[in-house]
Parts: sequence; structure tokens; C-alpha cells
Amino acid sequence: MVKVGVIGYGTIGQRLADGVARQKDMELVGIGDVAPTLALRALKEKGMPYDFYNGIPENASKFEEIGLPISGSMEDLIQKCDIILDATSAGVGAKNKELYVKYNKKAIFQGGEKNSVADVFFHGYANYEKGLGQQFLKLTSCNTTGLIRAVDCLDRAVGIEKVAITIIRRVADPGDYHRGLTNALQVDKAPSHQALDLMTIMPHIDATGILVHAPVTHGHIITVVATPKKDMSVDEVVEAFSKHPRIRVVRIADGFLGNASLFKYARDLGNTRGDMYEIAVFEETVVKSGRDIMFAINIPQEAVTIPETMDGIRAALEMQTDRLEAVAETNKYLELGKWMEK
Amino acid sequence: MVKVGVIGYGTIGQRLADGVARQKDMELVGIGDVAPTLALRALKEKGMPYDFYNGIPENASKFEEIGLPISGSMEDLIQKCDIILDATSAGVGAKNKELYVKYNKKAIFQGGEKNSVADVFFHGYANYEKGLGQQFLKLTSCNTTGLIRAVDCLDRAVGIEKVAITIIRRVADPGDYHRGLTNALQVDKAPSHQALDLMTIMPHIDATGILVHAPVTHGHIITVVATPKKDMSVDEVVEAFSKHPRIRVVRIADGFLGNASLFKYARDLGNTRGDMYEIAVFEETVVKSGRDIMFAINIPQEAVTIPETMDGIRAALEMQTDRLEAVAETNKYLELGKWMEK
Amino acid sequence: MVKVGVIGYGTIGQRLADGVARQKDMELVGIGDVAPTLALRALKEKGMPYDFYNGIPENASKFEEIGLPISGSMEDLIQKCDIILDATSAGVGAKNKELYVKYNKKAIFQGGEKNSVADVFFHGYANYEKGLGQQFLKLTSCNTTGLIRAVDCLDRAVGIEKVAITIIRRVADPGDYHRGLTNALQVDKAPSHQALDLMTIMPHIDATGILVHAPVTHGHIITVVATPKKDMSVDEVVEAFSKHPRIRVVRIADGFLGNASLFKYARDLGNTRGDMYEIAVFEETVVKSGRDIMFAINIPQEAVTIPETMDGIRAALEMQTDRLEAVAETNKYLELGKWMEK
Amino acid sequence: MVKVGVIGYGTIGQRLADGVARQKDMELVGIGDVAPTLALRALKEKGMPYDFYNGIPENASKFEEIGLPISGSMEDLIQKCDIILDATSAGVGAKNKELYVKYNKKAIFQGGEKNSVADVFFHGYANYEKGLGQQFLKLTSCNTTGLIRAVDCLDRAVGIEKVAITIIRRVADPGDYHRGLTNALQVDKAPSHQALDLMTIMPHIDATGILVHAPVTHGHIITVVATPKKDMSVDEVVEAFSKHPRIRVVRIADGFLGNASLFKYARDLGNTRGDMYEIAVFEETVVKSGRDIMFAINIPQEAVTIPETMDGIRAALEMQTDRLEAVAETNKYLELGKWMEK
Repeated sequence: MVKVGVIGYGTIGQRLADGVARQKDMELVGIGDVAPTLALRALKEKGMPYDFYNGIPENASKFEEIGLPISGSMEDLIQKCDIILDATSAGVGAKNKELYVKYNKKAIFQGGEKNSVADVFFHGYANYEKGLGQQFLKLTSCNTTGLIRAVDCLDRAVGIEKVAITIIRRVADPGDYHRGLTNALQVDKAPSHQALDLMTIMPHIDATGILVHAPVTHGHIITVVATPKKDMSVDEVVEAFSKHPRIRVVRIADGFLGNASLFKYARDLGNTRGDMYEIAVFEETVVKSGRDIMFAINIPQEAVTIPETMDGIRAALEMQTDRLEAVAETNKYLELGKWMEK
Repeated sequence: MVKVGVIGYGTIGQRLADGVARQKDMELVGIGDVAPTLALRALKEKGMPYDFYNGIPENASKFEEIGLPISGSMEDLIQKCDIILDATSAGVGAKNKELYVKYNKKAIFQGGEKNSVADVFFHGYANYEKGLGQQFLKLTSCNTTGLIRAVDCLDRAVGIEKVAITIIRRVADPGDYHRGLTNALQVDKAPSHQALDLMTIMPHIDATGILVHAPVTHGHIITVVATPKKDMSVDEVVEAFSKHPRIRVVRIADGFLGNASLFKYARDLGNTRGDMYEIAVFEETVVKSGRDIMFAINIPQEAVTIPETMDGIRAALEMQTDRLEAVAETNKYLELGKWMEK
Repeated sequence: MVKVGVIGYGTIGQRLADGVARQKDMELVGIGDVAPTLALRALKEKGMPYDFYNGIPENASKFEEIGLPISGSMEDLIQKCDIILDATSAGVGAKNKELYVKYNKKAIFQGGEKNSVADVFFHGYANYEKGLGQQFLKLTSCNTTGLIRAVDCLDRAVGIEKVAITIIRRVADPGDYHRGLTNALQVDKAPSHQALDLMTIMPHIDATGILVHAPVTHGHIITVVATPKKDMSVDEVVEAFSKHPRIRVVRIADGFLGNASLFKYARDLGNTRGDMYEIAVFEETVVKSGRDIMFAINIPQEAVTIPETMDGIRAALEMQTDRLEAVAETNKYLELGKWMEK
Repeated sequence: MVKVGVIGYGTIGQRLADGVARQKDMELVGIGDVAPTLALRALKEKGMPYDFYNGIPENASKFEEIGLPISGSMEDLIQKCDIILDATSAGVGAKNKELYVKYNKKAIFQGGEKNSVADVFFHGYANYEKGLGQQFLKLTSCNTTGLIRAVDCLDRAVGIEKVAITIIRRVADPGDYHRGLTNALQVDKAPSHQALDLMTIMPHIDATGILVHAPVTHGHIITVVATPKKDMSVDEVVEAFSKHPRIRVVRIADGFLGNASLFKYARDLGNTRGDMYEIAVFEETVVKSGRDIMFAINIPQEAVTIPETMDGIRAALEMQTDRLEAVAETNKYLELGKWMEK
């Protein structure tokens, strides 16, 4: 059993821990953090399903105050693991890396870190092979992860020449009080990093894009204009997406009116925290202009990178050498694509 | 085992069904609805944990289309039950009542119906005894239910003479697209119905209030100015609230900054849908002006009425004749107050 | 002097009246409406700069109650005018048309009416000539009006083959309480009507698009992917936009961060109501992917159609037969492009 | 003619400059700032109605770049004035004070500064006499200014013993991108500073209060529970407010549904920037609980402190020694209460 630790128990870290706990061929050794956040108070109230390791010795009394048992230091955690998932705030991962190097451990960083922190910039479906046996992987960010799933799906079907994307970015996560927009859309300098990142992962595609921040918390919406190498009908596009275990094709006519419907649906499914791993394609938005294909997808920003991070563990530790075998294992344990059985 | 049915599987109905399913002395016979909503699609995708009864025979094909098995008609459901929880849209419950009368069944209506639909306007903690053996109960609305919990708590401690409330009402539930406000606060004619309802349930208290709708989805915030009969210190107020199994005392200093923090916390606890049954008092808002006590509470609008509705079943069916025994049973099965053990 | 009346004194109607009042070769006869709205209360409080005509005789007492002088009936207004600008709610214009036919008057309808209500679907810059001498014109909607300004600008420079647009639509105007979204993005069935409308006005261009509603009130943001017939550099695109009197090129680096900055700027300019007639192109969003040009524009939805409606009056009444002469007159009186002088 | 300068040309500073320019017994010497903001770009585009003085010599080239003429340094401006209105960011005013001391000039600071910066904490209606002849005044903040107007109005009518307030605070101004909340209400530690400030200005009143931040931009809403010394009927309360030139009594039934209606109305009135100096009382919210009076008011945060700051100039420079004469002059030039004539 592969031993995995999660450092940084915030929005992403909590979900990484849950994701690892569901992989039957992995063992979650524990999670590490540095301050008594609401997430840790909840962990305590739930009865400590995961062991906690303290990243700052002098903060020990703060954890004791809330009754949170400490299983050791962060270095203890690192030493017990084969691989660390680093989900700390942007920049902290680069510092933590020194410890991973010191103990000669593998690690996967999240999208906030600079690419230079890692040996390979990784996406489970698009470039699994590049991650095989590497010590340090960096995952694509939430938007890029979801976007590449959709583009890779079409690219493997007919080949994609270029894409132009518009990202309507949710500006804060539910519960965030340290950032937010009120009654304003904010436009970023173009091209957006997601377009550039897509080209890094899929260098044969030309990409550009514009990102606009919107005052909502549940899911980014991306519109994609993709130029395929071979003509695809709308039905063929929908069919290709429908077969992908990490893409849900949903219909506006059925009540999936936008990002808030998908969050509601995930809650109604009983998913922990109302999380959703899969992106959604709104079927009625798939249209064509000449040969170009246009469509809109929903990116559930809190959980979308979890499956590809599990893939990353598989690649870094060479648990599977074949891309499709690897993603299939991840999908099985996370029950991705299960809705297709019905 | 008491047999319970839920009619109307929307925001409240789903949570009522889950609540009944957790009561070990009740059996959830099934749920009834009339159209293939996202909630029913999710029920289907989850594998039908609850049986479904169809309220409109001619809609059968719509349910078949999404593969949802139909266990019978709504009248079938009613006949199998001892009591029906009616969580249909405002006004529909009054029509459904004819069926409950026809089959001589008991029923509990939610806050949207007119008071005249029921024999008693009910709150588990405040007037349990009035519900004993009655055929038709109507629950207080979400805001009123939470408000009365807090006021009743102080009233039983020292007696309350009068209250003046300000309700900052979340204007839509997560996933609502049929209503909403954008960059606007909306003021209602005073006094708000919640103040009037409080006086109906607690006729010895004088109450008034103003309601302002705010463009948020997670939890109403109410400020209460309460005039006690006997002086209470801030510490005594906090202590009284701390002992109530349906009230959480939370601290801004710990990161509970507002309604969004509480929703986040409920999600992180792993509560289904991120639901929360308990109201929260923000400890640092408890202040005094002369003898008057002022404080702010958070009302998780989607789930707050569930415990009091369970109490209502207990009262209507005389499962417990004692108020405190009844609420204790409900609390036990919903694990309310479990956080106090620590 | 051409005599103009405005029927429907809502968001658009108020601004049409102001626009006509600024055209020195037009006379605003008066405005008509049917109920004592806030807009009419403000007109009264300002001292009746425009005469009011009552559309529903039996409502006369309601206007008297607020002290609003009535100059006559709506039919009186129509008879005194050469042309009517109909800014009533969608569908009402079609009914009013019977009166315009009865009195043989010209009229211009706004974007909410069906195309069939008019002889020509009109845009001042793109198809001025089609409106010459026509009795009934229908203006493009706010999004389409602004979009066509930008596309027509490039089309006249190098020719445009096709466009794919993403509209992030502000969901309500400031002050709207009858519609709104809260914490949700809503996706519409594609292609959006704006793409179809563009093809109606500019039939030589292939267009498609997706519209997403966002919970903001100040300005739509549209991203455009345009395929030109001849290659254009980013600088050439920016230069073409910079010379257009109804397009402002603004820079994120200067503080124009999104739609809310533009509303703030228009307020700070002292524009009545903080209105803005011109669309804005965010300079740093102009990028290329191969030959395709991508950029983001801001559409100030309340006032953007006013200049093109003034153009429509000029066309319908043949005040100018030349397109550029006509728009230049409108621009002069509305001081459009004045910022370029500096 | 009294010579006035404004330092800090942001949201408040722009409106202070406009306010001074409307006082026929004052001369606006000019405005000072330190960076080429959108407000200064707009000033330039409008043709420099006010002279500009540069606060940071080394930034001169930045102003030249945008073509903004510089009339001198900030010290030049100070020397030319009798009094300075300091509307810089919180904390900067305290530093600028050194210059005001150096040149022996009077100054008025805004609510963001600490009370200790000034000789007196000032409100035109409530404690005008305290400001007479003082060198340094500090204005109450926007919420406190509006709140005191309403409480002082009732206090002068019948005497007020105590108040308990709930402030629903707009979290950002229109155009703000540096702060904001998204789908969250944020609760502050009580008592709010506005309650404490009220007691500083009106020490005979006992006050407490809770402040909740809401994700809107147009106007705070405050509910007030006031205990009068003598009983007042609802009609008497409404009448008292109706006679106050800085308070508008508005009716929900007329369409004034909340803060967004008032902003819309101010825009429709043609007020510059859609600004409103007066607070509004929603007539249908005035209710009683025993002798206590409860009501809701709207505070237009951008402009509400302007009249009281004009009063402050009058007090500091002893232009009028009588409170009512002073506020009457301010009201006359700002046309406050003009709506009552009709």
C-alpha cells in the first residue's frame, strides 16, 4: 500500500485527503497544517478520521486548546510517507520542497506554485506518461484541469488545432471572507494563464483566452471555441463527451441552468460537502460556426483537481505505467462515470 | 414503528425525509412529488434510498424517462402512513389536506401554508403540549423556528417581556434560479410576520420586527433586542445558549465570521448536503443596553425546521407526552448537541 | 425641426428622451407612460423638463395624486409627432403600432419587440441605408448594438468572415427588484440571439455565441473571437477601435478593471445618471490566435442604444441620406468621441 | 469668501469638492491628490472645473502623461486656504495634520481618522456649537452621520433614552475592486463603533448595536429601536422625520423598495453621479413595541457626510454661530428639503 500524506488542510487539502482515503490501493498516513482553522475544528468534531501532524511546534498549545490530538511533527509525517500532496498556499510549497528533498520523498504540488517547483507539469488524461517516476509533479490549476479534460477528449477523437477560451471565474470559494467582488466583473490581461498552461501540456495546440472574474462562489464557466482537424457534428461532440468518465453532459432542459444547479445536484446526491469531481458540459450550448465547435463547461473549482492528483500519485510512484489503466483505477475508487451505467 | 410519508421533495422535503430516516422510532414509507426535478434525478442516481410515489398519474411517463421507479400513487402513499409531512409549495398543502381528511390521516404543514390550514401552530420547544394528539399541525417558518429557539431559551431562564428583531433574510437557496436579488437590499413592510408569529406561539411576549432581504444564499442573520424580566449578565446569556442542544455558540475569533462560515463548517463536518439543524449565536455579538440583551443569530434556512417537525410527529402521534422527553428523542437521533460532549 | 415623442418612460425611455433633447435638430414633444413610476416622480421633482402624456385615461387621478401635470393623452402625443420612439415593455410596442398606423406616423421600436413589428432591423453604423425613409424600424438590443459597433469597425477595416462571442450578461439594471440572480451563473441555450441578430444585420458574417447571465448590474462584458479576411496586428486592431467615436479604448493598467470601473468613471465624468453611450474595449485583452483576433468589450446596457436610435430617426425621416453624415450629427450632439480631441 | 481646499480626491473628496463649489459663500481653491486615479482622469476629461495640486512632486510626470495641469504643490494649496477638508485614506490625515499645524490652518477630517486627530468629534445637527472656532474637527462616519440625523430628530422632539441599532453595511462602493464580499454576510464584534460614536456625540443617550456587512454597493440600511422619554405615535414619528430637510420619508408602496431604489431615484433626478445627501426613512417600517419606536433608514454612503462637513466649515470658521442658521445655509445651497415645497 502506497503511503500518502497531505500537507495544507484547506479547501484543496481536505478534498485530497478524502480522495486518497477512497483509493483502496493507497493509505492516508495523515494530514499536516499549521493553525487551528475551521477545517481542523471540523476534523476534531468528526472524531479525527485522519491523523493530524503539526507544522509549527510552537503552535501546539493552540491545537491542544481545541482538543485536537497531535500525532507528530510535519517532518514525522513526511518521513512516514512515500509521497506528499502539498496543498499549502501559493509559495509555501516551494519552501516545503526542501524537506521533501531532504527526506528524498516524492511530492505533488497544486496549481498555485510556480512550474519551476516541479519536474513536470501534469494532467492525468493529457500527459500521464510524462509523470512516470518523476519526483516532483505540479498539477494544472482547477480551470486548466477541467478545460484540458474537455479539449483532450476532442483532441483524441479528431485532433484539435487551436482553441480560444473565455473563463468566467468564480471569485471566491464558499466561506471565503478574505477575497470577494461585489457587483462587479473584473477583466484580466490576456492571454490568460490557463491558455498558456494548456499549450504547455498540449504543445501541438495553439491557444488563447480571456478571463473575467464574476461575483459567484460555485463553479467557473468556460466557453471554448475549438478548431478541429476533422469536421465533427454536434452529435459527435456530445457523444465524445458523454463517454468520458470525468465529464457529465447535462441538459438545461432538465434543470441544469448553470453552476448553482450543479452544486445543488452534488449536494442532493449526498456527495461529501456537495463536492463534484467531474466537469459538466451543457448540451444545448454545443454549437458550430463553420468547422469550429463552441461549447460551455462548468468547473467545480473545489474538487475538480482531485482525480488528476490521484493520477499523479499513480504516475510518480509508477503504480500503473499505462495512462488508461491509471485513470481507470482512480475513476473506479472515486466512482467517476458510475452515472453512465444507468 | 410510526409510519411517515413526505409529500413535496424540494428543499425542505428532501431534508424532512432524511430527518425521518434518522429517527429510529419512525419508518419513512416514501416520498411523493409531481415532476422529474433535479432532486428526483439525484434520488434515482443514488439508487433509490427512498420509495417514490407519483402525485400526477399522467406524468408517469416523465418519471419512466429518467428511469425512476414508481411505487404507487400519492393516495397509495397517504394510505400507508400514520402521518404526512406536507412540504409542497405554499397553497398546495391546503389542497392536499382534503386527501388527509378523506383518509383520516394526520399531517404537518410547513411555514408557507396559512395558519388556518392547521389545528395548531407548532414549535417543538415552545409549545409542544399544544400539539399533543392534534390532527393538523403547522410548523413555524425557518426564521421563526430559529428565532423562537433563542427567545424560548432566555424566556425559560428569566422570562422575556418583549423583543424587537431585525431579520437579514437570505433571498434564495443555493441552486435557485427562479428568484434572486442582485446588488440590492429590499425592505419589507413592518412588523414582519416572524414577530407576529412569535407572539402567536408565545402570547406573553410583545414582539415587533423589520425584515430586509439580502442577496445571499446561506443563512439568515437575525439580531434580537430582548427585554428580560430579570437582569442577566452577558456571561449568563452565553451560558444559557451554550446548554441548548439546538443552539451552537460560535466565536468570530475562531473564524466563524458570518453565515458563509457556518455553511462551510457544516460542509467540512461532512453533514449531508452541508446541512445544519442548529442555529448559531455569535458570542461576541452578545451585548447589553441597560437591562436589554442584544445578540445576533444565524438561521440555516434549508434544514432548521427539521428537528421541530420531528417533534411535531412526536406530539401529533403522542409518541411522547412530555416536551423535554420528546425533543430529547429528536436530538438523540439527529445528534444535536453532540458537540457539547467534548 | 423634427418632432419626436417617447412612449414608455422606463430605463430606455428616459434616456431616449434625454438623447432627443440633446439633438439640436430635433424637438422632444413629450413622453408618455401609464403609471406613476419612480421615473415619473423624479420628472415631477425635477420640475417637468419634459411634458407628460397619459396612456390610460382612468389612471389620471394617480398622476394628479403625485402632482404630475398631464399635457394630454397618448394619442394627442402621437398626433403632434413626426416619429415615435417606442420604449414600452416587450410586446406592448406591437399593440401601440396600431395607433402609429392609424395616424400614419413613423416609429422606432426597441430590441424587445419581435423583428416582424418593423420594416427593417436597424443599426446606425452597420446598415443605415436600409432604414432610409422606412416607416417602422426596430433597433438591435443593447448587447447586439454594442457588439455590432465593434465588429462593423473591424469589418470595414479588413473584412470579417466569422465571429464567436461569449456574452457575460448583467442580469438586472440598478434599481431592479423584479428580477435578479443570487450567487449563480445561468447558461442559455446556444446560439444566443445576439449572434443570430448580428447575422441578420451583417449577413456576410457567420456568427455563433453563448450567453451566460451573471449577478451584476453595471454592463455586459462580451468576448469576441473574430476571423478577419486579412491579417491585422494587435496594434492595428487597437488603432481601428481608437478612431471610432462610439468606442473607448481603455486600459486595465489605468484602473479600468471591469464594468464597475466604467460605471464609476461615467459617474465621475458627471454624465447624467452616470450613463455611458460608448462601448469600451479593454486594450490589454486584444490578443491573437493564428489570424483570429480576440478581445473583450463592455456594454453599458442602459444607454448604449441611444445613439443608434438617434441615427434611426435620421434614417426614417431622411434627415441625412449619407450614413457617415448621419452618425456624425448624432455624435456631435451627444459629444461622442470628444475624448479623442484631447 | 471663505477659501476651502480638498485633499484626497476619492469617493468622499470628489463629493466634498462638489459640495463646496455649491456653497455660494465659499470658494473652492482646488483639490489635491497623489496619483493619476480614474477620478483625476475624469476631472481632466471634464475640462478641469477644479484646479489640481500635486501631493508628491516626483509623481508630476505621471500627471503630465495624462495631460492633467498642475496648479502647484499640496503645500501651495494649503497656504491658499482658510480650511482644508482632508478626505485621504485612514491614517494619512493624521500625517497631513503636521502641515495644517505648520501653516496654522483649520482642517476637517473624515470618519476614518482616529478621534484623537481632532479637537472635536462633530455632527452639524447634533453638536454644532462644540465645533465653533475649533481648529480641527472630525466628522462622524457615513453610518453615524445618518443615524444621528434620525436619532437627533426624535431626541429634539421628545427626548431619547436609549437606542439599539442593527447596521446592514454595504461592503464596497460602486467601482471598488480592492474589497468585496461574495455570497456572504459578515458579523462584527459588538457593540459597533457607530453605537459608541453616537454616545460620544450624544452622551445623554445609551446606545448599543450590531453591524453586519452585506454584499451590496448602494446604501447601508440601519434599523433603530429607540426608547423615547415621552410616548410618540407612529404618525408623530413620521411627521417629525418629514419636516427634517436632510431626511426623506419614502414609501415602499410608491416603489421605494430598498437601497437600490433610492440610488435609481437619485440618478433619475439627475443628481451628479446619482448622489444623495439625505437619508431615507421607509414609512411602512415605523412600528412600535410598547413605547419603543422601531424604523429602518437608508444611508447613501458616498454623499451623506457632505452636508455635515459643510456645517463643519461654518462652525470652525464661525461663519454662523447659530446651529439652525448654519444648517439652513448648507441646506439652501445643496437644495436639501426642496422636495418639501411641493
